[in-house]
Amino acid sequence: MADLIIKRGHVITINGGVIDNGVIVVDNGIITHVGKDTKEKADRVIDAKGCAVLPGLVNAHTHVSMTLLRGAADNFPFKEWLDKIQQAEMKLTPRCVRAGAYLGVLEMIKSGTTAFADMYFHMDEVAEVVRETGIRASLGYGMIEGMNEEPEVKLKNRAEFNLKWNGAATSRISTMYAPHSPLSCSKEFLLRVKEQAARDGTGIHIHVLETEDELGSMKEKYGMCSVNLLDSIGMLDSRTIAAHCIWLSDGDIELLKNRNVNVAHCPTSNMALGVGTAPVPKMLDKGVNVALGTDGAASSGSLDMWNEMRAASAIHKSKGNNGITPRKLLEMATVNGAKALDINAGVLKPGCCADIIIVDTGKLQLVPGDIYSALVYGVSGFDVRTTIVDGKILMEDYEVKVLEEEKVIEGARKAALKIDGDN
Amino acid sequence: MADLIIKRGHVITINGGVIDNGVIVVDNGIITHVGKDTKEKADRVIDAKGCAVLPGLVNAHTHVSMTLLRGAADNFPFKEWLDKIQQAEMKLTPRCVRAGAYLGVLEMIKSGTTAFADMYFHMDEVAEVVRETGIRASLGYGMIEGMNEEPEVKLKNRAEFNLKWNGAATSRISTMYAPHSPLSCSKEFLLRVKEQAARDGTGIHIHVLETEDELGSMKEKYGMCSVNLLDSIGMLDSRTIAAHCIWLSDGDIELLKNRNVNVAHCPTSNMALGVGTAPVPKMLDKGVNVALGTDGAASSGSLDMWNEMRAASAIHKSKGNNGITPRKLLEMATVNGAKALDINAGVLKPGCCADIIIVDTGKLQLVPGDIYSALVYGVSGFDVRTTIVDGKILMEDYEVKVLEEEKVIEGARKAALKIDGDN
Repeated sequence: MADLIIKRGHVITINGGVIDNGVIVVDNGIITHVGKDTKEKADRVIDAKGCAVLPGLVNAHTHVSMTLLRGAADNFPFKEWLDKIQQAEMKLTPRCVRAGAYLGVLEMIKSGTTAFADMYFHMDEVAEVVRETGIRASLGYGMIEGMNEEPEVKLKNRAEFNLKWNGAATSRISTMYAPHSPLSCSKEFLLRVKEQAARDGTGIHIHVLETEDELGSMKEKYGMCSVNLLDSIGMLDSRTIAAHCIWLSDGDIELLKNRNVNVAHCPTSNMALGVGTAPVPKMLDKGVNVALGTDGAASSGSLDMWNEMRAASAIHKSKGNNGITPRKLLEMATVNGAKALDINAGVLKPGCCADIIIVDTGKLQLVPGDIYSALVYGVSGFDVRTTIVDGKILMEDYEVKVLEEEKVIEGARKAALKIDGDN
Repeated sequence: MADLIIKRGHVITINGGVIDNGVIVVDNGIITHVGKDTKEKADRVIDAKGCAVLPGLVNAHTHVSMTLLRGAADNFPFKEWLDKIQQAEMKLTPRCVRAGAYLGVLEMIKSGTTAFADMYFHMDEVAEVVRETGIRASLGYGMIEGMNEEPEVKLKNRAEFNLKWNGAATSRISTMYAPHSPLSCSKEFLLRVKEQAARDGTGIHIHVLETEDELGSMKEKYGMCSVNLLDSIGMLDSRTIAAHCIWLSDGDIELLKNRNVNVAHCPTSNMALGVGTAPVPKMLDKGVNVALGTDGAASSGSLDMWNEMRAASAIHKSKGNNGITPRKLLEMATVNGAKALDINAGVLKPGCCADIIIVDTGKLQLVPGDIYSALVYGVSGFDVRTTIVDGKILMEDYEVKVLEEEKVIEGARKAALKIDGDN
């Protein structure tokens, strides 16, 4: 007797084609069978007729509690935006960060994201929310050298955070070291981070070349760009998530590929902040593992990964090439993201974590059209019917089971008012 | 006794600020009062607590029946895309155009669009759908010189179409002459169109400088760009909708302003086809009336004007300026569009047509945030609760009253299959 069977859906396996009227069997949090049929019985059977069944989406770069700063600094270019946001962030108490995390996780569960890579502060709050809600996350406690604690204390505190949370919540939580960027952390500090990460066996999550200013400053300071500097200290490997990666040379792309680095492309945020466009079609051509991230809601406005797929489609098509195909965009949002977070998910096949979403494909905005095209261009977060992580149903038939929506919204409103009130 | 009162909503008047807990009175299809309170009684009272109340959105450039070609030619640059689409269009029977119009109008009603400017063929079908469903439209029967009828016959047929439909359906339908573009119609033909439009007192809806190729070809053929050619025959005035307007010089922008031309900006389509970015911030600075359009769903993927506002925000911010404010984007999608279509709508004030939408603002993706920012960045078509045109409720509490959704979807699927099947 298995735990769960999802039947009669249009199964988009991502790595193994599409199965019409397919069946998925889940036992003990793991997918045990994907096919046309099964003789297995299960405690729970979900009828997915009229729906697509996909692996859950993976948000490879976000700051989830920034949902609280949504709309706080619209229509400012990057530097002014950052200034305003940092001023607001100084007012964020641990309680605020938790309220923002609840709001963000609620949005992710509702829009079909089953795992996310986060980087922020007061991260114990975020970890508690992840543990409580059942979503999966890779958590990085941000580090800006010179801010708050002394470097040695910071490194020690982060090691303690990682020790506390890595593998927690039946392995739904993993941790990463999260130095903010090669500009806000010195080479020496980054080297220490790298050593600790190697010692602890964890990955690294870092912003890389988000702005042209960073490129200029790095060349001035080190005579080389961020990618080369990180490579010089051995920080580029398959356990690294490099967010943004906009101002890359062809040589940088080659290096990212050779070192198996994971790039988190965040097109909505990049457009909103006017910081440039990452050379994603070129990276994909070269075989770089490019995942998708929403970045924080203070720049992207939402944590909806369907928006992010469409934004990635739009911005690269607008550059006059043929853009990225819908099928490739879905891969970026699933299997590429899972690889970046080093989780055994992102595809529907036996042996993988049962991180699965069910999406209503009967809606008018998907009519007519090829299934990949319809999913990427037609679906929004509001069409996700059911979200499952580790075989556990977090949302079913549009109803979130693990959070009280009104309470979460009320909490976020109150926390946001507190920030405004202090002005 | 009035017909309808909408009370307790957050009233976004567009031209006269925001009224919290406001009231709108509608009688005989017209808004008779907007304020904090009223002593009037009405047959119907709608409680809009927890919602924003706005003028309906105006889609200033679309080809509604192209919903049927959604996803038919993804990931092709403009010329190849056009080639594939035109091949598909040759198979579209009047019945197909009607099925596509039903699907498109359903999407518009659901996403809060109350009026649209259309340009296509078999337009009697579209007109019938507009009449039947209660939406408002300005319909242009497309003209490409040399395609189908002889020029004289074409001009005669279009005059007959206009005579038949202009002012029909209690004035919800108006008509425009719709020569396809200054490249696909000769100067002589356009002059004849202009004369007929002046004679009939109707506007003109035309594509202008959508591609750099058009700019080059016009300069080669006439020694001037499309804007100057249209001006030379008197076609630029306040009754003209110029769609796209991407490849403009500063002088062209000046001319569009001086002639009071309405520009329909279609950012999603423009990005998808990689044809360039219209200089919208510059046009707005100069005072040009820039409205928003989705273009056809074969390029934009949807007819959701909320998407379109977000796309306009994203693409212009991505160019490194501060972009367009949320408030201005809402104006473009409402009052500017109404001006382009020459309809007395787009704002909430006494004397205007009661084209009104009610939008749920309690949803998590709008929390927290300034109301304009939340509406533009947070709302999607799926948050529109009620859509009213001419005081008549077309959708209430998410339920479309004037169309059977499943039947419309089924009809569109069948019509689309027919096109595929003939391949």
